[in-house]
Amino acid sequence: MKKVSVIMGSISDKKIGDDVVAILEKFGIEYDLQVISAHRTPYKAVKYMEEAENNNIGIIVAIAGKAAHLGGVLAGLTTLPVIGVPVKSSTMDGLDSLLSVVQMPTGVPVATVAINAGTNAGILAAQILSLSNEELKTKLVDYKKELVKDVEDMNMELNN
Amino acid sequence: MKKVSVIMGSISDKKIGDDVVAILEKFGIEYDLQVISAHRTPYKAVKYMEEAENNNIGIIVAIAGKAAHLGGVLAGLTTLPVIGVPVKSSTMDGLDSLLSVVQMPTGVPVATVAINAGTNAGILAAQILSLSNEELKTKLVDYKKELVKDVEDMNMELNN
Amino acid sequence: MKKVSVIMGSISDKKIGDDVVAILEKFGIEYDLQVISAHRTPYKAVKYMEEAENNNIGIIVAIAGKAAHLGGVLAGLTTLPVIGVPVKSSTMDGLDSLLSVVQMPTGVPVATVAINAGTNAGILAAQILSLSNEELKTKLVDYKKELVKDVEDMNMELNN
Amino acid sequence: MKKVSVIMGSISDKKIGDDVVAILEKFGIEYDLQVISAHRTPYKAVKYMEEAENNNIGIIVAIAGKAAHLGGVLAGLTTLPVIGVPVKSSTMDGLDSLLSVVQMPTGVPVATVAINAGTNAGILAAQILSLSNEELKTKLVDYKKELVKDVEDMNMELNN
Amino acid sequence: MKKVSVIMGSISDKKIGDDVVAILEKFGIEYDLQVISAHRTPYKAVKYMEEAENNNIGIIVAIAGKAAHLGGVLAGLTTLPVIGVPVKSSTMDGLDSLLSVVQMPTGVPVATVAINAGTNAGILAAQILSLSNEELKTKLVDYKKELVKDVEDMNMELNN
Amino acid sequence: MKKVSVIMGSISDKKIGDDVVAILEKFGIEYDLQVISAHRTPYKAVKYMEEAENNNIGIIVAIAGKAAHLGGVLAGLTTLPVIGVPVKSSTMDGLDSLLSVVQMPTGVPVATVAINAGTNAGILAAQILSLSNEELKTKLVDYKKELVKDVEDMNMELNN
Amino acid sequence: MKKVSVIMGSISDKKIGDDVVAILEKFGIEYDLQVISAHRTPYKAVKYMEEAENNNIGIIVAIAGKAAHLGGVLAGLTTLPVIGVPVKSSTMDGLDSLLSVVQMPTGVPVATVAINAGTNAGILAAQILSLSNEELKTKLVDYKKELVKDVEDMNMELNN
Amino acid sequence: MKKVSVIMGSISDKKIGDDVVAILEKFGIEYDLQVISAHRTPYKAVKYMEEAENNNIGIIVAIAGKAAHLGGVLAGLTTLPVIGVPVKSSTMDGLDSLLSVVQMPTGVPVATVAINAGTNAGILAAQILSLSNEELKTKLVDYKKELVKDVEDMNMELNN
Repeated sequence: MKKVSVIMGSISDKKIGDDVVAILEKFGIEYDLQVISAHRTPYKAVKYMEEAENNNIGIIVAIAGKAAHLGGVLAGLTTLPVIGVPVKSSTMDGLDSLLSVVQMPTGVPVATVAINAGTNAGILAAQILSLSNEELKTKLVDYKKELVKDVEDMNMELNN
Repeated sequence: MKKVSVIMGSISDKKIGDDVVAILEKFGIEYDLQVISAHRTPYKAVKYMEEAENNNIGIIVAIAGKAAHLGGVLAGLTTLPVIGVPVKSSTMDGLDSLLSVVQMPTGVPVATVAINAGTNAGILAAQILSLSNEELKTKLVDYKKELVKDVEDMNMELNN
Repeated sequence: MKKVSVIMGSISDKKIGDDVVAILEKFGIEYDLQVISAHRTPYKAVKYMEEAENNNIGIIVAIAGKAAHLGGVLAGLTTLPVIGVPVKSSTMDGLDSLLSVVQMPTGVPVATVAINAGTNAGILAAQILSLSNEELKTKLVDYKKELVKDVEDMNMELNN
Repeated sequence: MKKVSVIMGSISDKKIGDDVVAILEKFGIEYDLQVISAHRTPYKAVKYMEEAENNNIGIIVAIAGKAAHLGGVLAGLTTLPVIGVPVKSSTMDGLDSLLSVVQMPTGVPVATVAINAGTNAGILAAQILSLSNEELKTKLVDYKKELVKDVEDMNMELNN
Repeated sequence: MKKVSVIMGSISDKKIGDDVVAILEKFGIEYDLQVISAHRTPYKAVKYMEEAENNNIGIIVAIAGKAAHLGGVLAGLTTLPVIGVPVKSSTMDGLDSLLSVVQMPTGVPVATVAINAGTNAGILAAQILSLSNEELKTKLVDYKKELVKDVEDMNMELNN
Repeated sequence: MKKVSVIMGSISDKKIGDDVVAILEKFGIEYDLQVISAHRTPYKAVKYMEEAENNNIGIIVAIAGKAAHLGGVLAGLTTLPVIGVPVKSSTMDGLDSLLSVVQMPTGVPVATVAINAGTNAGILAAQILSLSNEELKTKLVDYKKELVKDVEDMNMELNN
Repeated sequence: MKKVSVIMGSISDKKIGDDVVAILEKFGIEYDLQVISAHRTPYKAVKYMEEAENNNIGIIVAIAGKAAHLGGVLAGLTTLPVIGVPVKSSTMDGLDSLLSVVQMPTGVPVATVAINAGTNAGILAAQILSLSNEELKTKLVDYKKELVKDVEDMNMELNN
Repeated sequence: MKKVSVIMGSISDKKIGDDVVAILEKFGIEYDLQVISAHRTPYKAVKYMEEAENNNIGIIVAIAGKAAHLGGVLAGLTTLPVIGVPVKSSTMDGLDSLLSVVQMPTGVPVATVAINAGTNAGILAAQILSLSNEELKTKLVDYKKELVKDVEDMNMELNN
């Protein structure tokens, strides 16, 4: 199975990165966790993406805030699917990040999840990889049952 | 290769649906184009999603506007990746649709593209399918070259 | 008198649910408090709504945040009036929830109250039920007098 | 069966008022269509609301734009349920109207529908009245079937 | 000299009301501080405004949050100038209040100051009253000098 | 009676300026209509404001769009009340203008009316001047009756 | 004197590019007009920036819409000042472009002008270059006089 | 080398002013730090700008919040480049400041950086001055290497 690159624009996004990693580990998916800044280390971004497929990378998860160009820049350098996670920063309540990630021009999509939604970025990566991996598919079906169980537990809690 | 379901919330979203279909046809990807409303035909939504994998569907593209619940509802009924296309309606300039599609709760992601970005939804579907299809991969690499060529043509036009 | 269903999208919305319940109890209205997630437990949502009228439910109150589809999904499954309470989450200051709840398409309304306004959802439910219940009507008239009294008390406080 | 008051803040809101009236007529519900401005004719507002219940009014629909106080003002004068329809005006794309209608303080709810959603205001009124009227209930069930039929027709159109 | 009415929609707005009062006292302007709710005590609002001019009131300051109708409602009941102070509430960061106060329809203006700007509402009232009061005019000229002095003090602080 | 200065930031705001002028003429208030740009003609702004009171100006109406600094700049140069009219420009739907006009810092208020609300700026000016002018007061009372009559006419129209 | 690069993200931004060019020509500043897409031609962007200083480029003007990463990407590749012009696209009224251009992370500024403000981008470039060019300085002083003259002409027009 | 004026609208903006100063000191650029309020000390603003070039000032950095007119007002008084830093205040999350700073009319640009981005304002000033100062240019190239080093350090941290 291919690996998932989890790229953060800064170490300050690590909490979100950890959420992605936690769910990938739960699903048994290998990953490469990196800080690459579209603005501070553009050459590293180019180099990383050029080598990505040789390194068995199948999906890129890009985590960034404010004028969050990371996902778009990486998407411009690959034909792999790129998942973007907008991060809420100290101003504008995440709207700047969301619009910067999602409003990509024709030809270069970024698959955007909710603001700060590292877990969902990991699940989406798993769903994509499960299209050609039956074992992962089974885990996702089980995960959906867990979600149902979670709600049942909430109702238990409610009635006690 | 698996098929892509292109689901519109209403026939009024057909222009966006046609954009998805056009790019899927360009990449030689089979699709099923349908109108299913999360609010008006919820039972059809359930039934369609229950049969999706048996019908060789691999990816869902959900196109909807305003309180655009379609993508989220379909994502709740499947482990397949769901791509959401928010549609700009006559009020709120697309912000309502974008937030309704992208801000999904933990556990149930929708891979959101830009407002009205039918073409990008199709490209994202192709990128996902190309992870296990070399021919499609090649087409995507060629498409990226076309994008470069388009910009070169623009510069030609500029200098004449 | 019919009962009111108070449905929360997650146990994390319990504080708002409690506000609804408190005002319903004040007015002597029976209720059923549940966690049902439109995305995690869609089948439970369908089943609950199919049985609602047989269970003497007259009004649905749906409490949810972010891409708050719960009210819309329940409204698609019933002809009972559905009251939606958008919940402020950790990003976007409640705007995402509000737009996701209120901007419903033609044919399927959700009666939306203010962000986090559990109490008002309960009052609205009481107002609706009071159309065919004189005793409840009297209680609502008394409640309006309480509101006047509250303001009088504020002015007392101001002058001391 | 009780009547529905359809109150517009200005004759310029007539198109939305007509949408409410059309759906009420479809469901066979009597109505009273009026222009009452919360700001220009406050005394008329007070008088109208004082007489409303004697005039067999059961529900108020308030249609207004910009700083849309009409619904809130009428709700302050009655214990009847008040449905608010925010109208998109020439600036702010309807956001001003929506927030002015929906963000009511504790104690005085306005049941808000989508921006410009006259039809949905009418349907919501019908849903409320149907709680004590079996014939109207049947009509609403039939209307829901029409919605399904509409989507089926759209799919027919798609396949031709 | 005429008096200024300082009307708060709720005792929870008292901090802003105190800011208005503090600056009025500084300028030696008499005032009447009240809680009047447009929604909870509409009859008190009507009565207060009917008696306002007889009570030597010249200007109304209306302080309210969320769907802040207070200023507009009072302006509908008088030809006196009404100053509106939008209050930031727990959701929407004050935008709902601002739009509800300022976006008044043609014929009924509310002179809106910044969100939470009680002090500025008081200064504006003083400026209006100073048009026919030389002593107050002098105080306002002195106040402007104080503002200059404040900035000079800040520069002193900066250089130490 | 004092005069009203109607200052536009650009000739492109003339439509709004004409609305102010029309209502001032209706009320028999003298005015001075000027284009003064806070950014292009700052010295003219300073000079105009220094001479304003000698020229019998009592109120300033400032009309400007985008980063609409005109009202704030003029308010910084005078103790006269300044009324600000935010103008909707070709981007941002008027929100930029509104926030630039209304969000003034402590000490320097601008009495802001709705976006594009030239008429209301004129009425507010009349209300202010009427505090010391009985004849103008009477005209304002009559104007309020006209507003009532307008609504009555709308209801006539509705019933025919 | 150094040259100004005027880079557009797409030929569809040409109208704004022409505005930049027109003002640069007015000030006698040489320029290089190009289409370079951060997403479609990332390698061209890298190459262009690597050669920029050798080609006597002193300032970059980046024109782009939607998730407008162009300015940020170019700024990451140079120590030259980068001026960003956000372009209003068909959705979100320019807010997405503005936030994507201006909200740059620490270390990599983009000097942002108003939405669609090509002319102002050119003036800003001229102001920067004039710091070491007296002739250009004189032209800018003359330009400021033109702005004053424009307002004078508007007042002439007003009085005729 | 020319000096940079760092102008704050209020002492409450000092934290942002300190960020500008810190980076200017790092690059060895002289500066003049001042509080000047566009609204409270307009005459000081005029005087300061008239003397700026004689005082060897080359660039103005204007730091202000809310209806942040400071940058625009200073830009109207000079042909020097003006850099604007919008400051997040207690309401509206910085959007009011950003729009007030950036949305300048044609003819008078303000080079806007991100909300609260004092450091970036300083870097932009350094980039501008480096166009005619080789030593500063070298420092900026070194600074860019520091940014790369920072990211490398983050990756080190990640792997330990």
